[in-house]
Amino acid sequence: MKLWISDLKNYVGQTIELKGWAYHHRSSGKIKFLVLRDGTGYCQCVFAKGACDDESFNGFEQITQESTVSVSGAVRAEPRSPGGYEVTAQSFKILSRAEPYPITPKEHGPDFLMSHRHLWIRSKMQHAILRVRAEIITAIRDFFNGRGFTLADSPIFTPSSCEGTTTLFQTNYFDEKARSSQSGQLYAEATCAALGKVYCFGPTFRAEKSKTRRHLIEFWMVEPEVAFNDLNDNMELAEQFVEYIVQRTITNRAEELKALERDTSILAKVRAPFPRVHYDEAAAMIKNENPQFEIGNDFGAPDEAIVSGKFEKPVFVHHFPTAVKAFYMKQDEKNPERCLSCDLLAPEGYGEIIGGGQREDSLELLLKRIDEHHLNRADFEWFLDLRRYGSFTHSGFGLGIERTVAWICGIQHVRETIPFPRLYGRNYP
Amino acid sequence: MKLWISDLKNYVGQTIELKGWAYHHRSSGKIKFLVLRDGTGYCQCVFAKGACDDESFNGFEQITQESTVSVSGAVRAEPRSPGGYEVTAQSFKILSRAEPYPITPKEHGPDFLMSHRHLWIRSKMQHAILRVRAEIITAIRDFFNGRGFTLADSPIFTPSSCEGTTTLFQTNYFDEKARSSQSGQLYAEATCAALGKVYCFGPTFRAEKSKTRRHLIEFWMVEPEVAFNDLNDNMELAEQFVEYIVQRTITNRAEELKALERDTSILAKVRAPFPRVHYDEAAAMIKNENPQFEIGNDFGAPDEAIVSGKFEKPVFVHHFPTAVKAFYMKQDEKNPERCLSCDLLAPEGYGEIIGGGQREDSLELLLKRIDEHHLNRADFEWFLDLRRYGSFTHSGFGLGIERTVAWICGIQHVRETIPFPRLYGRNYP
Repeated sequence: MKLWISDLKNYVGQTIELKGWAYHHRSSGKIKFLVLRDGTGYCQCVFAKGACDDESFNGFEQITQESTVSVSGAVRAEPRSPGGYEVTAQSFKILSRAEPYPITPKEHGPDFLMSHRHLWIRSKMQHAILRVRAEIITAIRDFFNGRGFTLADSPIFTPSSCEGTTTLFQTNYFDEKARSSQSGQLYAEATCAALGKVYCFGPTFRAEKSKTRRHLIEFWMVEPEVAFNDLNDNMELAEQFVEYIVQRTITNRAEELKALERDTSILAKVRAPFPRVHYDEAAAMIKNENPQFEIGNDFGAPDEAIVSGKFEKPVFVHHFPTAVKAFYMKQDEKNPERCLSCDLLAPEGYGEIIGGGQREDSLELLLKRIDEHHLNRADFEWFLDLRRYGSFTHSGFGLGIERTVAWICGIQHVRETIPFPRLYGRNYP
Repeated sequence: MKLWISDLKNYVGQTIELKGWAYHHRSSGKIKFLVLRDGTGYCQCVFAKGACDDESFNGFEQITQESTVSVSGAVRAEPRSPGGYEVTAQSFKILSRAEPYPITPKEHGPDFLMSHRHLWIRSKMQHAILRVRAEIITAIRDFFNGRGFTLADSPIFTPSSCEGTTTLFQTNYFDEKARSSQSGQLYAEATCAALGKVYCFGPTFRAEKSKTRRHLIEFWMVEPEVAFNDLNDNMELAEQFVEYIVQRTITNRAEELKALERDTSILAKVRAPFPRVHYDEAAAMIKNENPQFEIGNDFGAPDEAIVSGKFEKPVFVHHFPTAVKAFYMKQDEKNPERCLSCDLLAPEGYGEIIGGGQREDSLELLLKRIDEHHLNRADFEWFLDLRRYGSFTHSGFGLGIERTVAWICGIQHVRETIPFPRLYGRNYP
C-alpha cells in the first residue's frame, strides 16, 4: 500500500518510498528540489550531490512536469516547507514520463482550461476548491444525519416537472418521455410523510441557455423537508444549517481557504440568527436604488445584491409574491398575493443560495394553483394524494451546492466548484 | 417545533402534544388504542373513558387510517409497547381526515403497490428498508471520508459511454446529444490523479429492457478509485469496506432488520478477509454443475449462485476473461486473455454487488482496446491524456447500492430498496 503525503508526520526519521507526480522542480548547482504531489498534499524532496546516488542526481533533469515519480529517502520535519515535512532523497525513479504538459504558468483562457479540466483539477487552486466542496458536502450530510433526518433519494427521471416546463431536458424512456429532475422536492414531500424528517441530495438539471457565473446545467442540490415545520421553523433550520457548514468548513479546510486567499474573517460572522426581511420591505430597498424595479417582480442578481449588501450575514427574504413562486408554495392566508416562501441571500454579492418555504397543504388550493400554472393534473395525482391521505403542515428548502462552494471559497464563477461542470455549450470532458 | 416520537424518552412523566399519522386504531369498550407514526417511530396512545375528555373518547371513531392527528397526554415508559413508550391520552384533534386509504391489509399486487409507492413507503416494512438504505449510504461515506478519500462527483451528462453503447439513454443537449452516465469511473480516474484517493457517488442509468429482480433503470453507485493501488490492494479495500458497512448496519439498524425478519447471524459472519477465486477455478466449479456453461463467458445469475453458494462470506472472483470486461481493465501481463478485474459475489444468492479492478495504464494498449470495442477515440481523448501526463497504477470498484440494500435487508427484489424505483415500463410516481 502506498504511503501518502498526508501521513508523513508518522514517518519522521524513517526511510520511505514516496510516489506521486512532479509538481515543481528546480536545480541550483549542488542541490535540486522536487515538489511531489499525490493528491493528499505536497512534499518537497531535496537531492543533494553526494547525499543521493549519482544516477539520481544526474538524471534529475529527465523529470518533466506531472511525470509519475517514486522517491526514496528520509523524512524530516521542516516547518518552512509546505506541509511541514521534507524528504532527503537518496534516489528516484521515473515511473511514467509525462509529455510536455499543456497547462503552463502563462495565462490560459477559460475555454482552454475548461477543455483541459481533467488536468486543470491537478493545479493547487482547483485542488483546494474541490477539497472545500467535499468538506461542505460532508458537513451537510452530517448536519442532517446528526438531527435524526433520513436520507431519501428522489428519482432523476420523472414524468412531471417541478419548477416549470421551459428548462427541461427530455429523454426517450422506452416508449415514453422522461424528464431529468429539476428538483427532488415533490418526492421529498412524499418521503417526509413516511419518514418525518428527510433530505434528498442529488444532481438536478436545468436546460438554461444562459452563460452567467451563477448557472450550471447540472448542479447538486440538498433538499430537506420536515413534517409539521412551518415557515418560521424552516428559517430556523436553514440558518442553523448554514452556520454549521460555514463554521465547520473554515475550521477543517483552513489550509485550502488560505491557498485560495479567502478572507475567512467575513465567514466567521456567519452565525445564527440571520436577519429576516419581508418581500415588501426588500422591494422598497431595491426600488430606492433601482427605480426600474417593479414591486411584485422576482429579484434579478443586481436586486439581490442591493438587499444582501446591507447585511454582513446571509439575509432571508420571505413572503415573496405568490405569482413569482412555484405552484406548491403555500399562500399567506392573510394576503393570498404573498406566499410563505423564503430565500436566503448570501453576502458579498453571491446572491440566492437557498430557496424554500411552507408547502400548500390544501387540496383545493393546490388544484387551483396547478391549473393556474397550466400544469397537467394527471401528472400530479400522486402528489395530490399527499393532501388526500393525512395532509399536514410541512416546509423545506433547497440549497445549491455550487453557489455555496463559490461563496465559501470566494471565487467568481460556479464552473470551478464541481469537478466536471456542464454549461450551455459544454459537455466535454 | 414538533416533538418527535424518537425523542419521547426525554419526556417521561410530562404532558406533551404529539403529532403524526394514525397507523392503527382499535376500540375495546372502555379503552381505545391509537398507534401514531411520525416517521421517526411508532407510539401507542391509550384513550381510557374518564381519563380523557368525553369529546375525544366519543370522537375516536372519526379517525381514519393515515389521518393526521394531534394527541395530548402524558408520556410513560411501557416496555411492552413498540418503541418502549406510551401516551396516556387526555384529548386529540384530527388535523386532516384521510379519505379511505387505498393500501389495505389485504394482498395487493406489485403493480398496484408500485403505482402507490408514494403511500406504500409509509408501511412498516418499506419504512424499515428505507432506514436501512440511509444507514448503508451514511456508512459508505463515513468509511471513505474516515480514510482520507475526497468525494469527487462525476458528471451525469456525458459525451461518451463507459460500459458499452447499447444501454444508453440519450438526451438532446442543446445542439448536441448527451448520454446519461452509466458509471462515474472514467471521471474518477481523472479526479484520482488530482486528489489521490477519491470516490464518486451518484445515480447511474442503464436502458435495459429487462424485468429482473436485480435490475433498475436508475440506480445509485459508489465508485472509489485509488492512485497506486493494484488489484490486490483493491480487493483488500473492498473487503474492509463491505465488512464495515455490513457490521455497522446490523448494529445501528437492528430494530429495522428485526422488523424485516432478517437473520443477522448470517451477516455477522461478513468479516474480512473474503475468499478469492480465480476465474478459471470459478468457471470449473460452474461447468461441473452447469455443463452448458462455456469457459471464457461471463457469468449469469445462476452461475454466480453456484460459486457464491460454496461460501458463507462474499467471495471475490478475479482475473475474468479480458473479452467480457470493459475496455479500461488492465490485461494480465502474463496472460493477456485474462484481466486484472475482480467481482464480489454476495452470499445467499444475491450475486454481484461489486465490479472493479486495476485499470489499463498503457496508452498503447488502451488505444488498442478502444479500437477493439469499436469506440470513438475522439470521445476518449481526455481519458487518454491521463496516460500521457504521468500514467500510474490505479484501481477501483463500483458497488451498487440497491443490490447491497436488498442483500442486507434479505429482500427479493431491488424495486423496494429505493424510494421511487425506475423500472422498464415504469416512470411513475
